[in-house]
This record gives sequence, structure tokens and C-alpha cells, in this order.
Amino acid sequence: MKVFSVVGITESGKTTTIENIIKELRSRNYSVGSVKEIHFEKFAIDTVGSNTYRHREAGSQLVTARGYFETDILFQEKLSMDEILKFYNHDFVILEGVTDSNVPKIITAHNEKEILERLDDLVFAISGKISNSLDEFEGLPVINTIDNVEKIVDLIEEKVFDKLPDFPEDCCGECGYSCRQLGALILKGKARREDCVLAQSRVKLQIGGKDIEMVPFVQRVLYNAVLGVVKELKGYEEGKEITVRIL
Amino acid sequence: MKVFSVVGITESGKTTTIENIIKELRSRNYSVGSVKEIHFEKFAIDTVGSNTYRHREAGSQLVTARGYFETDILFQEKLSMDEILKFYNHDFVILEGVTDSNVPKIITAHNEKEILERLDDLVFAISGKISNSLDEFEGLPVINTIDNVEKIVDLIEEKVFDKLPDFPEDCCGECGYSCRQLGALILKGKARREDCVLAQSRVKLQIGGKDIEMVPFVQRVLYNAVLGVVKELKGYEEGKEITVRIL
Repeated sequence: MKVFSVVGITESGKTTTIENIIKELRSRNYSVGSVKEIHFEKFAIDTVGSNTYRHREAGSQLVTARGYFETDILFQEKLSMDEILKFYNHDFVILEGVTDSNVPKIITAHNEKEILERLDDLVFAISGKISNSLDEFEGLPVINTIDNVEKIVDLIEEKVFDKLPDFPEDCCGECGYSCRQLGALILKGKARREDCVLAQSRVKLQIGGKDIEMVPFVQRVLYNAVLGVVKELKGYEEGKEITVRIL
Repeated sequence: MKVFSVVGITESGKTTTIENIIKELRSRNYSVGSVKEIHFEKFAIDTVGSNTYRHREAGSQLVTARGYFETDILFQEKLSMDEILKFYNHDFVILEGVTDSNVPKIITAHNEKEILERLDDLVFAISGKISNSLDEFEGLPVINTIDNVEKIVDLIEEKVFDKLPDFPEDCCGECGYSCRQLGALILKGKARREDCVLAQSRVKLQIGGKDIEMVPFVQRVLYNAVLGVVKELKGYEEGKEITVRIL
């Protein structure tokens, strides 16, 4: 699952850029999901007085509204991006205005000052209003998605990689970098997505159907715990895949 | 996780009954979640023209709105109750107006005719407007939640059991019944939740794709080995299915 973010100030063209990219990705037959970060303290999607609103006011801690054609799960907290992305299994996920994720980024801006305020080594393109008057900025392409969406989506196909995990450096770092640093190196063509040691891992864990990422040390502990029991059993064969399910 | 449903015609007192039950369960220190079935074809929680609405219109197949104090995951399909309940880990989950789940039920009604239209062997209480004029109906207690919510919540504590699976009879039936039949027998005190054989064998092992049978002692050893590691991990939630694969 390839994840990237579009960041920029209000009215710089974020949502329009994303709309155009979504349409183009879908027309290339990719599945696409998206996340919108709402920077508005009083945001609430539910309507005062609705039945689901009444459930919540009475004390229900997780409320779902199921209609004929949609199902809305309303968590009463700001979930982390890692928790949110567990609900997705799309080819591409686009994050609007999300800054707490180490994914490749497109900046939308009105002017060069706004770009500089957001520029870092995860940015791979610039778009939005400034793309009417500029083609390139410090080596980065500035692309207008209204008349040139194919170009930015070509670049997304080329640059955006399967999402890296987001471990603190002191927790993993087995590739020699933090997850964020590795991401920046991949964007520059100086490392490969396969350099993330977790891509090589032989131990997979799911809880409640969701993948749980483990640093190599924890993988080895779990591997030893399972093998310690299983290799004593009749039916064990070295090298065969082992699946344990606890219901 | 104990799950029950409150069903009844519009204006029969469903949401009021649920509000009172939620408040009383929370005051007894239970965690509570809820699901509202919306029987209105044009229901859409999102507002026309919002950024998330624009994502969806452009073709985003799963849209999330993340605010400061809530995260709303907007699936564009009617999910099954089993899929929805995977998001929950609460002591009690109350379903409003949901009929496609084999859980114990409370009927709310204006009159006896409305009760009879909904009565089956999963109903354990009656409430809503009719409880102003009736105390009992065909052996079932009729309870007013406005002035007698303790009584209905005592009954919920006594009657509602950890949700049974919902397998087709020809897929399991190892207890001798369908899941729905077993539920009805548990409500009548003629079977126990533990009679569900899936409650007994919680550990499954496959090697090279083949099921390996384990005596209960070995199951417990493997269970403890896996849980010993997994329950220390971020993402672990009690009661959720765990899958470990070693490749």
C-alpha cells in the first residue's frame, strides 16, 4: 500500500489537487483511499439530535451508523495514522493535511514562502496555485493538476513506495537509518524499499485481522516461542509454513 | 463482548430505551458501544461539498475524517454485523434496529400487535411506550426504562451472553444446534454459553497448510507461549483473534 500526503495552507489548492489525482489514479485502475485531517477544533461529523448523537451523549464509547449504502464508524478520539491505515488495503492512500506520518509529500502553495515553510526531504513535488506561475523550485517539479495531472501521477507511480513502518530509531534502526531517513533516501534513489529489514521478516502477526508490525527483536522472541512448542509435535516439518490461530 | 439488539417501530421508544440503558450500564462501570441501523435509503453522514465529500466524489473508496477529538471512518457499503463488531472490544454493544444478527433482543412497541410482529425466541424483554400500560406479555417482562432502568439492566446482566459466532448450521453445528438455536436455549437457561464448541478449542495450528490436532494440554502450552509474547505488544486487545504465521 503506497501512501503519500498533500500538505499546504488553506485555499492553496490541496483538495482540488487531491481530487484530480484521485480521478487520474482511478482511471489507471488503481484502488484509492484517502484521509482528511481537519484542523478545526469543533469539528463533529454527526448532527446534534440524531439517534447516533444521542447514543454518544448517553455514554456510548464507539458509535456506528449503518445505512443502506454506507457504514460510518465514529471513534471518539484522534487515532494515530498507523491505526487509521490498518482499515485500508488500497493501492494508494492519499492523506490531506496530515503531518504526523513519514510518507512522501506534495506541497501545495500560493507562493515560494509557503513552500519553504513546509519543505523537507520527503517532498517530491509541488502543486496548487503556485503551479500557474512556476515550473520548478529548488530541483523539485511544480505541476499544475488541472491541465497536467498525468505528469504528477506519473511521478507518484515512480516515486511513492509501499509505506514504511514508523518506529522510533532507538527501537529498530536495523537498516542503519530511522524509518523517516530511509524514506528520504528511497525518494532520492539512494536506497530501496527492500532495505527495510521488516520487508524480509519471516514472522507475521495479526490481531483482530489487522497486521501488527514487530521490530526484529520481537519477531525473534515470537518465532522462538512458537517453534519451541511446535517442533516437538508430531506433524512438524522443518521449512514448512506454520500458522497458529488463537480465537 | 456481550451484544444485544433493541428493535421496534419508529417512535416506539427505541432510542430513549437505549439511552437509559447506556447510562445505567456506564454507571455500573461497563464499557459500552453501540450501532444504529438507519432505515432511510438516502442517509449520508457527510455534508455535500465538504472536503471528504469531494474525495469520495472524485473516486476515493474509503474516506476518513480525522479531527482533534474524533476519527470517522466512512465505508461506502453496508458492512455485515460481524465486520462491524470487529471494531468493538466493549463489555456491552447495543444494536438499535439491527435484525441480521442472532443476538438477544428487547422489543419496543406501542401495542401488543407490534410485539407479536417481532416476537421470537431471542426476545428476553419488552420496553418502550407499551411499558406505561403493561407489566408482562406472554411470560416476558415489560419494563419501563424511564423509572425502572435498574430492573432491565439487571436482566441484561443476567441474560445477555458473550456473542455467539454466526456460522451456517452446515458449517459447524458441532454443539447439536445452529448458533441461533443455541442462543435461544441459553436465554431459556436450557444450554450454556460454554456449549459452543468454539469456546472450548481456542488454539488452531497448521503446518504446511495441514491442521495439526493438539490435545488440550498442548493447546494450552502453545496458547501460553504465543500470548506470553503477544500480549506485551502495542495493538494487542484481549479477546481478539490472533494469527501468527512463520514462513
